Amino acid sequence: MNMKNGRKTDLTVSGFSKLPKTEKINWVARHYFESADEVAGELRSYWQEEEAQKVIDGFSENVISNFVLPYSVAPNFLINGRTYCVPMVIEESSVVAAASSAAKYWLSRGGFKAEILGIRKVGQLHFLWHGGEAEILHQLMPRLRERLLADSADITCNMRGRGGGVIGIELRDFTEQEPGYFQLLVTFETCDSMGANFINSVLEQFAESLPVFFAEQACLPAEARQAEVIMAILSNYTPECLVRATVECPVAALGEFDGCMNPADFAARFARAIRIARIDPYRATTHNKGIFNGIDAVVIATANDFRAVEACGHAYAARDGQYRSLSDCRVEDGMFRFWLDLPLAVGTVGGLTSLHPLAKRSLQLLGNPTAEELMQIIACTGLAQNFGAVRSLVTTGIQYGHMKMHLTNILNHLNASEPEIAAAQAHFANRPVSFTGVRAFLDGLRTGQQVH
Amino acid sequence: MNMKNGRKTDLTVSGFSKLPKTEKINWVARHYFESADEVAGELRSYWQEEEAQKVIDGFSENVISNFVLPYSVAPNFLINGRTYCVPMVIEESSVVAAASSAAKYWLSRGGFKAEILGIRKVGQLHFLWHGGEAEILHQLMPRLRERLLADSADITCNMRGRGGGVIGIELRDFTEQEPGYFQLLVTFETCDSMGANFINSVLEQFAESLPVFFAEQACLPAEARQAEVIMAILSNYTPECLVRATVECPVAALGEFDGCMNPADFAARFARAIRIARIDPYRATTHNKGIFNGIDAVVIATANDFRAVEACGHAYAARDGQYRSLSDCRVEDGMFRFWLDLPLAVGTVGGLTSLHPLAKRSLQLLGNPTAEELMQIIACTGLAQNFGAVRSLVTTGIQYGHMKMHLTNILNHLNASEPEIAAAQAHFANRPVSFTGVRAFLDGLRTGQQVH
Repeated sequence: MNMKNGRKTDLTVSGFSKLPKTEKINWVARHYFESADEVAGELRSYWQEEEAQKVIDGFSENVISNFVLPYSVAPNFLINGRTYCVPMVIEESSVVAAASSAAKYWLSRGGFKAEILGIRKVGQLHFLWHGGEAEILHQLMPRLRERLLADSADITCNMRGRGGGVIGIELRDFTEQEPGYFQLLVTFETCDSMGANFINSVLEQFAESLPVFFAEQACLPAEARQAEVIMAILSNYTPECLVRATVECPVAALGEFDGCMNPADFAARFARAIRIARIDPYRATTHNKGIFNGIDAVVIATANDFRAVEACGHAYAARDGQYRSLSDCRVEDGMFRFWLDLPLAVGTVGGLTSLHPLAKRSLQLLGNPTAEELMQIIACTGLAQNFGAVRSLVTTGIQYGHMKMHLTNILNHLNASEPEIAAAQAHFANRPVSFTGVRAFLDGLRTGQQVH
Repeated sequence: MNMKNGRKTDLTVSGFSKLPKTEKINWVARHYFESADEVAGELRSYWQEEEAQKVIDGFSENVISNFVLPYSVAPNFLINGRTYCVPMVIEESSVVAAASSAAKYWLSRGGFKAEILGIRKVGQLHFLWHGGEAEILHQLMPRLRERLLADSADITCNMRGRGGGVIGIELRDFTEQEPGYFQLLVTFETCDSMGANFINSVLEQFAESLPVFFAEQACLPAEARQAEVIMAILSNYTPECLVRATVECPVAALGEFDGCMNPADFAARFARAIRIARIDPYRATTHNKGIFNGIDAVVIATANDFRAVEACGHAYAARDGQYRSLSDCRVEDGMFRFWLDLPLAVGTVGGLTSLHPLAKRSLQLLGNPTAEELMQIIACTGLAQNFGAVRSLVTTGIQYGHMKMHLTNILNHLNASEPEIAAAQAHFANRPVSFTGVRAFLDGLRTGQQVH
């Protein structure tokens, strides 16, 4: 029981998911808002036309409205000799500006180079086996592998036809940490799909086959013929599905910064900032966050799964026992080189990539890339983002640009006129920007104007 | 130069950001799409009405359209005795369903408990000092602290008025890893704001004051009076801005699962799955990804910054040198207890929280929470998500639900009729679902219908 309008209201509900959409909206509006009709109307106002909305409603459950995020583009991305205009979906100011600016900067310096270092996806079948020495399991592995592949042949048929499928099945022994716990670590190639549904379907078939296989091993003692599946699911940790993005040029070609920092000083300052992000996890977290500002924006624009990409990237950043920067930099023999190694499982077919109407357009804008090409484009956008952010940090600082953007946002929100905008920009040029501060300033201005 | 329609086309552009929006769209459509007019129209079709769109355009740069994500709600969240209906923005199927189902499950078992373990935010001033023993710096610290606080008093005035401000300034010595590199690790309280702009503004003021302070230390030798600022910026790693969400009930109250698994077996299987996610980084990555499915959905719905939340959470998961599960579970003395410790820097004022029209509604839906309340709601949603996912994994497996959802999505996309939907559901009940497979099935059905 909660209080609303001084009355106790029961805010729990049964069968909500089965209500028609309009009734869902009405229930939410009536139980949680004062102005129920206004809210219900507003939620409906974000719907697309009927057929398009039906598609979006199908992505999730209990959908009552649409949440809009700005859809932007960053042109002038020269990647492996081809010029891309990169779609980016992000609500944070300065990200698209920084990516575009970094893209333009490198356009005249050879552009971005990207290469695929691996494309293996991963899945796991976790099981319990208390049948004796692990050596018994190792001896069974060749036949178990064969059996699992045969039993899943129907499921993997199409993917094998496209050149993918199950690549390897490795036994891992965790019995020292958890009694009886073993694992099959399965590697996959999933071609142009991210592969989550494919991998999970194969693993669930493995989960059915594994206990049967053990039960059939007549030569083993009874207790060794029992294997209990704990769970079967893909792993989002894919360190061998890896892409490297690089920019490189002579130090002298880096140019002057701010009219006062020479190229060698800039290179030294930039490289030091990267080293700091490798030394200190507090800095590394923010540094990598900046990289993911760029990465996620493209991942979302192409309807890939940014939680998967984030989890994998950050776990990878901690792979040597300390959380570190994902990018690295060397200044050697007069050359400046800056690169990013990023594990990245994304797809250009399957999932929502062709279901979301704008994601389809994003892929067209990128020339309908293969999954490998998309990995390269995403990694380069992340590197560009990182370059732009660190360049700002070691030259002008980041707040100047941020505050200007934030001020514009607030002025737009408060419907400021052109003269008010000009006055506010002058006033806040050297003052911290806050919503209350800007409103107070405008109020003063407006009251003043009324008086005179 | 790229190829289009067999002709070489220059796809680079100058002054793009300064073009009016319509010209941006036309440039993109003409240079990257075959059907330029259709694409331009489609991009425009996602715009909101003029004033609302102006606000969204202001969030980012080079905005040409809006990307819609489904806005859903998960009702029945009982958190610290209050019933919430949680707004969630996510494109992945089954996430909202799992959160709602877990919320309902715990509603009758005492609900969620959440507590704030800390609210400190972090910023860093990185600088170089080659003036001798670090001890000199340590001795200067009390006066440096005083000076930095005094110089930033104007900027921190409002925040101090609300009970926040700078809490501590600690000197860190990294000279063994990087010659001359020191850092001020600054802790902040930012009340109900996420605090990024505030923290960065304070730090940039510190960056101006620090070299001046050193230059004025007349008693020091000349080289000790020089300090060079490398960069000044907030850290997204906030291990002391921490919330704990917990669910707890007697094992016997967990109920039967699938009509075949008794409560004690379920508790044991569930707890083992959590232990595995603490032992194995491959599993931990996916486990935490599932937690962030829930977390990010609320973070986005309230216009907070999910990249910041992701980076911090995953770096925290690796804090002891191995990447591990963020949630933990104990089954002891007949009680089942499952909890999540999550570092989480979010705000309910400032940033875009009150600028994005639906984010404002999200906060109203949650009863206009303080930042601490929002931390609790988000953590509970993450825990619910994790509970739902692991419950599926150790009972029915996750593919059953996923495949059903994926099939519905594809059928919607292909405008399947009710009879076609029924036929497809029957056909794919025990078959893997793919876009090509479903389309082929529908084509067969449709051709068949025409023939007979």
